[in-house]
Amino acid sequence: MDKIVRVNTQTGEVTYTKPTEEQAVWGGRHFIAKTLINEVPPTCEPLGKHNKLILANGLFADTSLTTTGQLSFGGKSPLTGGAKESNVGGFAGKRLSKLGIKALILEDIPERNKIMTRVLHVTKDRISIIETPELKGMLVDETFLALRKQFGEKTGLICIGPAGEFKMHGAGIASIDDKGLQVRYAGRGGLGAVMGSKGIKAIVIDDAGATYIPDYFDAELLKDTVMKITKTLFENPKSINRKKYGTLDILEMANQVGIFPTRNFSSGQFEDVSGLTGPDFAEMVQKRGGVGKSGTPCVPGCTIQCSNIMPDKEGKKRVASLQYENLSLLGPNCGIGDIDDIGELNHLCNQVGLDAIECGAAIGVAMDSGVANFGDAEAAKDMIRQVGQGTYLGRIIGNGAAFTGQAFGNRRVPVAKGQAMPAYDPRALKGNGVTYITSPMGADHTAGNAFETLKTNNPLGLENQVNNSRQLQVRAAILDSMGVCLFIRPAFVKSPELLTNLYKARHGWDFTLGEIKYMGADVLETERAFNEAAGVSEKYKRIPEFMTEEPLPPNNTVFDIPQEELERIWSVEVRTDSF
Amino acid sequence: MDKIVRVNTQTGEVTYTKPTEEQAVWGGRHFIAKTLINEVPPTCEPLGKHNKLILANGLFADTSLTTTGQLSFGGKSPLTGGAKESNVGGFAGKRLSKLGIKALILEDIPERNKIMTRVLHVTKDRISIIETPELKGMLVDETFLALRKQFGEKTGLICIGPAGEFKMHGAGIASIDDKGLQVRYAGRGGLGAVMGSKGIKAIVIDDAGATYIPDYFDAELLKDTVMKITKTLFENPKSINRKKYGTLDILEMANQVGIFPTRNFSSGQFEDVSGLTGPDFAEMVQKRGGVGKSGTPCVPGCTIQCSNIMPDKEGKKRVASLQYENLSLLGPNCGIGDIDDIGELNHLCNQVGLDAIECGAAIGVAMDSGVANFGDAEAAKDMIRQVGQGTYLGRIIGNGAAFTGQAFGNRRVPVAKGQAMPAYDPRALKGNGVTYITSPMGADHTAGNAFETLKTNNPLGLENQVNNSRQLQVRAAILDSMGVCLFIRPAFVKSPELLTNLYKARHGWDFTLGEIKYMGADVLETERAFNEAAGVSEKYKRIPEFMTEEPLPPNNTVFDIPQEELERIWSVEVRTDSF
Repeated sequence: MDKIVRVNTQTGEVTYTKPTEEQAVWGGRHFIAKTLINEVPPTCEPLGKHNKLILANGLFADTSLTTTGQLSFGGKSPLTGGAKESNVGGFAGKRLSKLGIKALILEDIPERNKIMTRVLHVTKDRISIIETPELKGMLVDETFLALRKQFGEKTGLICIGPAGEFKMHGAGIASIDDKGLQVRYAGRGGLGAVMGSKGIKAIVIDDAGATYIPDYFDAELLKDTVMKITKTLFENPKSINRKKYGTLDILEMANQVGIFPTRNFSSGQFEDVSGLTGPDFAEMVQKRGGVGKSGTPCVPGCTIQCSNIMPDKEGKKRVASLQYENLSLLGPNCGIGDIDDIGELNHLCNQVGLDAIECGAAIGVAMDSGVANFGDAEAAKDMIRQVGQGTYLGRIIGNGAAFTGQAFGNRRVPVAKGQAMPAYDPRALKGNGVTYITSPMGADHTAGNAFETLKTNNPLGLENQVNNSRQLQVRAAILDSMGVCLFIRPAFVKSPELLTNLYKARHGWDFTLGEIKYMGADVLETERAFNEAAGVSEKYKRIPEFMTEEPLPPNNTVFDIPQEELERIWSVEVRTDSF
Repeated sequence: MDKIVRVNTQTGEVTYTKPTEEQAVWGGRHFIAKTLINEVPPTCEPLGKHNKLILANGLFADTSLTTTGQLSFGGKSPLTGGAKESNVGGFAGKRLSKLGIKALILEDIPERNKIMTRVLHVTKDRISIIETPELKGMLVDETFLALRKQFGEKTGLICIGPAGEFKMHGAGIASIDDKGLQVRYAGRGGLGAVMGSKGIKAIVIDDAGATYIPDYFDAELLKDTVMKITKTLFENPKSINRKKYGTLDILEMANQVGIFPTRNFSSGQFEDVSGLTGPDFAEMVQKRGGVGKSGTPCVPGCTIQCSNIMPDKEGKKRVASLQYENLSLLGPNCGIGDIDDIGELNHLCNQVGLDAIECGAAIGVAMDSGVANFGDAEAAKDMIRQVGQGTYLGRIIGNGAAFTGQAFGNRRVPVAKGQAMPAYDPRALKGNGVTYITSPMGADHTAGNAFETLKTNNPLGLENQVNNSRQLQVRAAILDSMGVCLFIRPAFVKSPELLTNLYKARHGWDFTLGEIKYMGADVLETERAFNEAAGVSEKYKRIPEFMTEEPLPPNNTVFDIPQEELERIWSVEVRTDSF
């Protein structure tokens, strides 16, 4: 990928550059971190002209490596105030790579904050901004439908919903597959609002006639390594379960160990998870038939295939795909246990353009504040619809959990750095508390999830949590820079030489495992430097006090890792002997 | 004043201590700053158990010095996240001093954030917390009426309105005079929410039978100095105009020089200020008669008497008192020019318990976002009523201008450190921009108002703004620690020895003018240290970008003092040769 493209969203000017030698080594999240620190003033307003919306492909986007095609979105986050990267499947990343585009950077904003509804149209020959007032306020499915009609079905499509247009801090960026079925989100951090602030409703990537041919250093080695990785994953029991049950595979265990957010994080265990577990869900999908399907890929060519298409009782699409975190936050965290209600809630989030995790946490806080009763699924659906309509309540919910807490004078707000916690309560999975507080991303399970080490590292103890999170965070940063899914991890854990071989084969880089690990650490250091300059660090943004005061049933533990220990994380050495 | 009283709002426990030698030297704002840095973790949640609500009398509260009785309220601000002091007239400060109470510190919060409606009852013999569920949700006038009935008319009364009970970040703390007429506010920074978080709806200070006798070091010198200060002020033209026209005295000039916030800070000049200027207002008050009155005191014994009782057309109270900043923000800043509408808006703020500056700025932002048209006074009144009712729109407005801007995706938000700017647009009075950004208080005209130096320091130039603000801020900090009104200032400017004599006569302290100035600087340094540790400094919290991009008519200037110069303010030397 030999092009970095910049689009000025005020003037429409487009500029192309070749990646410098330095830039060539930065993929995905790494590229975003470096672009932020080099080009965006850390104290700038996230929705103002100095912020940039950066789309960056990973280092292996133009290979056939399984799970690649995860496209990274980034910028200064309106939600956390710090550096943000959020990546997503779909077909856009691969199509960008076919055009040889390593990164697409949206700069500036329309003059005088004018509200504009436009499509950024990317083709082989031309990149242009097209006025599309007819898309204004449109829901996500409708938008994709209109785009497919106008620009064709074989295009990479990205858009925001009304939440992004309203510049709500909980807004995400949606992508879709070529069949127009599976909506996926670069959900976290409010990047949908950044896109909205630039007056871009959608991005269409048309790779027809693309002539870019990747220049593999050692095509044979690449092919061999890619095959070996796929094979390793096929044999890995976790991967096998992921295809069968998707991310819901972990639900039963999460509930059992008591980290499953229930009724605004007041318990770690929901009374009845039948119908919600991986096996129950898969069985339901199979029984109902219709368009329903388990084990679908989210990027073309993925062999893990943890996605699903959830059917309703008539076999029509209810939502695609339903993931563990969304289910938990929109479901039991709101006291809701019916899978159809939860599916519908997730679908509504997808339609209005809201991060489902942030939304579920916000509704949980609202219910905890008396806006509706826990368990009232119809009230929850209504709240999300109101987000799309921009009512006053919708404006509150759409701005996320912390905002909702402030609106209703409720301090029981499960956030870190202003971002809602995903479905792993840090009082009973303390390693995730470390990640939430110290990660430059704020609360984010993909930034270093200690659930992975549940059996090797006591989740309730104080021992080794900081070191463990440190290693997990470095690892996540590497994968986020490669443009692969975190679920590729078992292959590199088992055979680290598969990782070094990849770098060698694709790029000709002779990196040792240690050097690759240090690149991961460099991602974190860069993001951290940006955050420090923006005033967003673990020094100031601490664990919510209620999590240090209210013991979490059934373990009845609080989050008690001392602040000094959290702040020591940056000096913990990176392990170079294993992935 | 020989008592510091602490009340635990969870257990009801009351403890008394004598001020240490160090504490004795700290009055009002100084006492609050030191208590915060010594006792409150800077990163704590402002509405959580670690924050404290501190009531502190000034160093001269127990003397007959004119304007004394200004009672300082303080704590960690929910609005700015930093140190906060806000002082207020009324009869409570003097009554506390008659009981010999230097400071009253409310600690902890009710268990599990339980919502409680209680009165803190302070008498000569006993301090106790009384459950008063009947006051729940009551407007401020009704609350004071109920308190006067239950506790007698000769009591110092303090309360919050529904806004404080809802823990809205724009909530203030109200006080009233003995006639039950003039409502005044410790408005800024959301301290009403801190009081609400502690489950205290009102504080009643009954000084009946008080036996405390202040121990003046030199009663004769004190009497003589106090007399001389009063005499100097009587002869001062500014003071004379303040009695005639109140703070509205400056309105015409502010409009003329183009710093008068109009339609959400989009102009510095309102098209028609007739009926709003000091002379017009005074004439109207006189014509309407009834309870209407200009030149009333806000603390017993004040000789400046800049307050007023604004009558409606029938001569009944519309609002008391109407001040320049409130009028500007609720009026022209919302496109509203009718004095009766503005009086009613201010009255409504007073009733629901909201800071009128923050509220006017929030409504201006809401109007700028299309919630209502500029100039629609009925819509504005409705918004404030909704604050009292806790509707969704009310929850948005009640949380202030920045919150409202986020809700509606509008970046034209006139705040510094999250707090709304008072009625001096910093683009045409750049010294105030320096104060807004650098003051530990956030945007606050009482923290160092360059309007005072309008004629000696070009308000549009870049020269000397930082130095000027520095000197004004130090001076304000001294006065806020003495428990006097800023309007006493001309006496000390003219005769600095009156200031040093006061310290000597009351306390026996041989402070030079320079030493007193350094005490002022120490207040700022202490607050600044607290803010730095909380992550709230001018490094991170900068001038809103729209004020650097949109030139302000009629001067068509932007705020352009370089950030580095702002950050240099702390090293600017304090002038010791003049007050």
